[in-house]
Amino acid sequence: MSVEQIATSLPIMGGKAPTQHPLGPLTVSEITESSRLIKSLWPEDTALQFKGITLQEPRKAELSLYLKAEHSSGQSTPTIDRRSFVVYYLRNTDKLHEAVINLSAGKVESNLRLGPNVHSNADGDEIVKVEQAALQDEGVKTAIAKLQLPEGAVVISDPWIYGSDGVNEGLFSDEKRMFQCFLYLRDPNNPSEVDSNHYAMPLSISPVVSADTLKVTRIDYLPTGADNTISEPKPYKVQPPNEYIPEAQNLRNDLKPLNVIQPEGASFKVSNFSEQGRTVEWQKWAFKVGFNQREGMVLYDVHYAGRPLFYRLSLSDMSIPYADPRHPYHKKAAFDLGDAGAGIMANNLQLGCDCLGSIHYLSAVLSDDKGDPLHMPNVVCIHEQDNGIAWKHTNYRTGRAAIARNRELVLQSIITVSNYEYILAFIFNQAGEVMYEVRATGILSTQPIDEGISVPFGTVIHPGVLAAHHQHIFSLRVDPMIDGPINRVVYDEAHPMPRSDFNPHGVGYTVIETPITTSGGFDLDFDTNRTFKIQNSSIKNPVNGKPVAYKIHAPPFQKILADKDSFHHKRAEFGDHNIYVTSHRDDELYSGGKYTNQSRGGTGVRSWAARNDKVLDDDVVVWVQFGINHIPRIEDFPVMPVEIIKVSLKPVNFFDKNPASDVPPSVQSFNKSTLASVEHHQEVGEAVVGENGKVCCIESKL
Amino acid sequence: MSVEQIATSLPIMGGKAPTQHPLGPLTVSEITESSRLIKSLWPEDTALQFKGITLQEPRKAELSLYLKAEHSSGQSTPTIDRRSFVVYYLRNTDKLHEAVINLSAGKVESNLRLGPNVHSNADGDEIVKVEQAALQDEGVKTAIAKLQLPEGAVVISDPWIYGSDGVNEGLFSDEKRMFQCFLYLRDPNNPSEVDSNHYAMPLSISPVVSADTLKVTRIDYLPTGADNTISEPKPYKVQPPNEYIPEAQNLRNDLKPLNVIQPEGASFKVSNFSEQGRTVEWQKWAFKVGFNQREGMVLYDVHYAGRPLFYRLSLSDMSIPYADPRHPYHKKAAFDLGDAGAGIMANNLQLGCDCLGSIHYLSAVLSDDKGDPLHMPNVVCIHEQDNGIAWKHTNYRTGRAAIARNRELVLQSIITVSNYEYILAFIFNQAGEVMYEVRATGILSTQPIDEGISVPFGTVIHPGVLAAHHQHIFSLRVDPMIDGPINRVVYDEAHPMPRSDFNPHGVGYTVIETPITTSGGFDLDFDTNRTFKIQNSSIKNPVNGKPVAYKIHAPPFQKILADKDSFHHKRAEFGDHNIYVTSHRDDELYSGGKYTNQSRGGTGVRSWAARNDKVLDDDVVVWVQFGINHIPRIEDFPVMPVEIIKVSLKPVNFFDKNPASDVPPSVQSFNKSTLASVEHHQEVGEAVVGENGKVCCIESKL
Repeated sequence: MSVEQIATSLPIMGGKAPTQHPLGPLTVSEITESSRLIKSLWPEDTALQFKGITLQEPRKAELSLYLKAEHSSGQSTPTIDRRSFVVYYLRNTDKLHEAVINLSAGKVESNLRLGPNVHSNADGDEIVKVEQAALQDEGVKTAIAKLQLPEGAVVISDPWIYGSDGVNEGLFSDEKRMFQCFLYLRDPNNPSEVDSNHYAMPLSISPVVSADTLKVTRIDYLPTGADNTISEPKPYKVQPPNEYIPEAQNLRNDLKPLNVIQPEGASFKVSNFSEQGRTVEWQKWAFKVGFNQREGMVLYDVHYAGRPLFYRLSLSDMSIPYADPRHPYHKKAAFDLGDAGAGIMANNLQLGCDCLGSIHYLSAVLSDDKGDPLHMPNVVCIHEQDNGIAWKHTNYRTGRAAIARNRELVLQSIITVSNYEYILAFIFNQAGEVMYEVRATGILSTQPIDEGISVPFGTVIHPGVLAAHHQHIFSLRVDPMIDGPINRVVYDEAHPMPRSDFNPHGVGYTVIETPITTSGGFDLDFDTNRTFKIQNSSIKNPVNGKPVAYKIHAPPFQKILADKDSFHHKRAEFGDHNIYVTSHRDDELYSGGKYTNQSRGGTGVRSWAARNDKVLDDDVVVWVQFGINHIPRIEDFPVMPVEIIKVSLKPVNFFDKNPASDVPPSVQSFNKSTLASVEHHQEVGEAVVGENGKVCCIESKL
Repeated sequence: MSVEQIATSLPIMGGKAPTQHPLGPLTVSEITESSRLIKSLWPEDTALQFKGITLQEPRKAELSLYLKAEHSSGQSTPTIDRRSFVVYYLRNTDKLHEAVINLSAGKVESNLRLGPNVHSNADGDEIVKVEQAALQDEGVKTAIAKLQLPEGAVVISDPWIYGSDGVNEGLFSDEKRMFQCFLYLRDPNNPSEVDSNHYAMPLSISPVVSADTLKVTRIDYLPTGADNTISEPKPYKVQPPNEYIPEAQNLRNDLKPLNVIQPEGASFKVSNFSEQGRTVEWQKWAFKVGFNQREGMVLYDVHYAGRPLFYRLSLSDMSIPYADPRHPYHKKAAFDLGDAGAGIMANNLQLGCDCLGSIHYLSAVLSDDKGDPLHMPNVVCIHEQDNGIAWKHTNYRTGRAAIARNRELVLQSIITVSNYEYILAFIFNQAGEVMYEVRATGILSTQPIDEGISVPFGTVIHPGVLAAHHQHIFSLRVDPMIDGPINRVVYDEAHPMPRSDFNPHGVGYTVIETPITTSGGFDLDFDTNRTFKIQNSSIKNPVNGKPVAYKIHAPPFQKILADKDSFHHKRAEFGDHNIYVTSHRDDELYSGGKYTNQSRGGTGVRSWAARNDKVLDDDVVVWVQFGINHIPRIEDFPVMPVEIIKVSLKPVNFFDKNPASDVPPSVQSFNKSTLASVEHHQEVGEAVVGENGKVCCIESKL
């Protein structure tokens, strides 16, 4: 401990970082400089394991002034020092540190040792070493030998975040950072296929590896029956494989190409607001895009037609608690952002594979375990898509149809978390709406099960393979500035009118608005059509005098099922309410807490909300939870068809009319569609079409 | 009465209709023959008003045998007589009749007078006459004069379905069929613009017109304050217009074209199974498409890879009850299918306006008020769309990504119901899923409100204009045959395990399945993740032994708010539960009853469910309700951005793996996307792309 204290007390001078926008993600040189400054705190021979070197965002009080000046042309922006936030271990120890570096001043401003029971995220280099440690362990080899696997069989090790259960007895303690490895078999009849789906062949041996020593500390045997009895590994029965790679399929041959062509290019503009920061402008929208190790995409300073809407938008965290209560499965509850990182796990997106149309890719620079810059190509794709009809009306008296199509701008990022994938997208449209869409796909986390057995906490998806039920609970952080920084959150409910002289027929109903005055957790209620709105009570709509607002459309979900005393529940501080409302604090970005790995709870949004802060006409933050209770179907294997979940933020009396009224009409001369019926392969040729595309919509007859 | 009784007792011979498939929509000659046969029942000079001449579908017992034979190659299909169902009035009377005609035998099989209190749908010819009757009435002219409208001002009359309120006193009785006309002003500063949005200028005068006599029977004055006081028309204050037509807008000029090009044409095939009936085949899907006056699109005999899934799919009805309890608004509760007809109101869809890509249009033949065939061009468009990523997995060890895109087949129909539009679509994908999507758009139904007033049952959306809150409640009829005609409906719920030696950490949860044994109404419950499934209990999944099933994903909605004793509630028999399950009866197609216009209730799905029929392993019908409580925003005017609601039917242990596993991989050589960054108008050129599209997905690195 003394070392660090001395270290931070010494002013350490270093080369200045280049002048940067306060929101610009760290540059290559800033990352290098950050790790250099941290290393310089320690004796030459001290090995460090860096867990993250990211932008320390300025305090909102400072940054707001900067952005205000930036938006008022001519005003000069105040100077804000660039800072980085560094998390690192003394390698092969549990000595976790977090440091803040002032890059403008070239000094370490703080460097603190954390703990006990505070553990950092995993990193890629570590994961590979843990895999190897598990497979090279003599005890594990002995256990595997008992499976009597076929000659040449290849065993695969998937390290899992160890989780927490409050058990602190010796080998089972979660006070030390550990990994629970689950073992699988590559198809022994095709062992050279490195992309064989090993999740179709789970083994019953689960080594536990210490993150400090990278040694196996324990070997768990997994229960494979209906109860929690375990046994020594028995000879393994090889079942048929279940592959997802195309060469293992009998592919469909009747799908014709569908190309999205933008002959004049895309309608959006991308520019740099800093070396690594991008500004995106599209259809009256303007916002800044950042990218970091933990959250991946972050949107800042979102405006529509020059009016401020959101100060910051990001996926805050997610929790995936599993339903199997048996050791060691009872600890399975991943926090994919906090335990690993949505940025560091982002896929390198490929042209024409992950998006269609005219695509712009954003690349990012993150950092590796050695503190060196890590180039992350194509982590975000930006493109437009057509989402059907935006609005239409036909005057039945004249037969004239007015119609516009629903063009959307998509910023998409895809993350791979070992077996599983999430496709994450911010979507903007021309009606002033912002959507956040999650597509859950990838491969189910599997475990062995004896043949002929079924259990109520999972589904058999392949012979000998169980996929346990699990929940995916996401938390979207919305830091609003609806026409300004001071907002309130209210909810509307629709209630029937009592019968009276005014309502003699019992058909009337009214909408009642309730403001939220104190921070807390709140829930949807479809029986009252409860709708949450973020409002600026000081700005009234010019036509109807209602406060300008954005409403939140979030799909319902089953709240976390683990009981209130369980660690799953304590740790997933966002899992028990659809909506949390808190008063803004600069250090409160992650609804599950800053350090989720093997966390014990008490550090996230539930705890912040419990402060009972005043949130009426304040600088509020809204946390929107959504998700699915994934009861696996056999159709979800070997790879899962996307399950789509979408949250929408929609204007309510914010504009003075439909903001998409000015979208040019949808006409054939612009859209260039074709008649399938005039293609020879069609059996029927039948259609009545206006002779001229450009007026077709005006000729439409009811 | 005697006339009809004699008539139906006489066997009337006529020309044979052409041989047709039992599910084929009526042909031109069958419509002509049907009206001829009906007319021949009556004296020469009897004027008839035809309300609908549609296919009388065969009894399921008969048709099932026919379809079974049709699907077993070589088997000859049994002969089923073609029948039509005819609804008509003796013109200018309330004498409503329904007749069934055996077209194969050329005779009227039944011809019944209906009533009292049974009223038929409106028809187009009638609507126009009612508009005119209201505007030409001397009393109405006198009332309008009191508004002291500007020189040349044009008044527009929107006839509304009269509704029911159980009041049977003289002028206010709804025993007779009537129309409530709402009057509006075309922008007096631009009175020659026939497509001016008159809903921005509502008047306080509301004539009631008799459907029998086409005369004004009453003139209502509308309450325009916060209470229910009404007053004589006062001089009208002209407010600014609020137009939706493009030439009235300052259109955006920065939207670049987006073309969907299918160089090899579409992947679907359309053929005729009868003169007017189509078979659609696409990506292992095969089904028949019919079209009728009331439901519009109907899908029959839906199969996937040769396995039966659905016997019949259609939108059954919708109810739109309004929140304003004041006379005459308290009667506003439209049943757009039963009161008017989704088929007869279908838009003539235009190439490149209503859909993109390679499009096939279906046209239909319906009938008019004279009993003549009515050609309805392009009422359905069929096209494919790309809906992002279908599934993806990246092996983080090798960096290889496997990915497929989510191609969908869309059958879209758009209906205009006076001021409002619904975009209705059946959507199929490659993962064995069927979706029904509704997009609500068009123009709000408006009413006058005094300036400076706000009311809790509506929103002021323009100066002097109120849009009352209202619900849209839809009812989708699902007649399933999941791997056969005998199915059951069950629901799954997820429940926490109690703490025990098996669940010592309180994290376990289980899924419990409950079968529905008796017909009734059922509700969603997100707190238990309640999920309804249609199951074939006699067919087990080969891998996990679970019964094959399809689950229903329906969004929650607030049930009908009008109280149980109200006529809105009595009439909307489907509005009080998410799910109704009934035992199949041939004459039960419409969840609000066969005749919804001014109906009194007791004739729909709630009443059928009350029979407490056995529905466990039976020929069941599932009615899925969904909708929105539309609390108008100013952004919904002058034309509303689409509100999208989607119901999905997804396989659950129906297949033995992800049915989309065999979709060819998504590759650039197939998709032909482009880099926005290489287009000169882009400010930033940045991207890292595999040198070769066709292998790009294999090169993807984590």
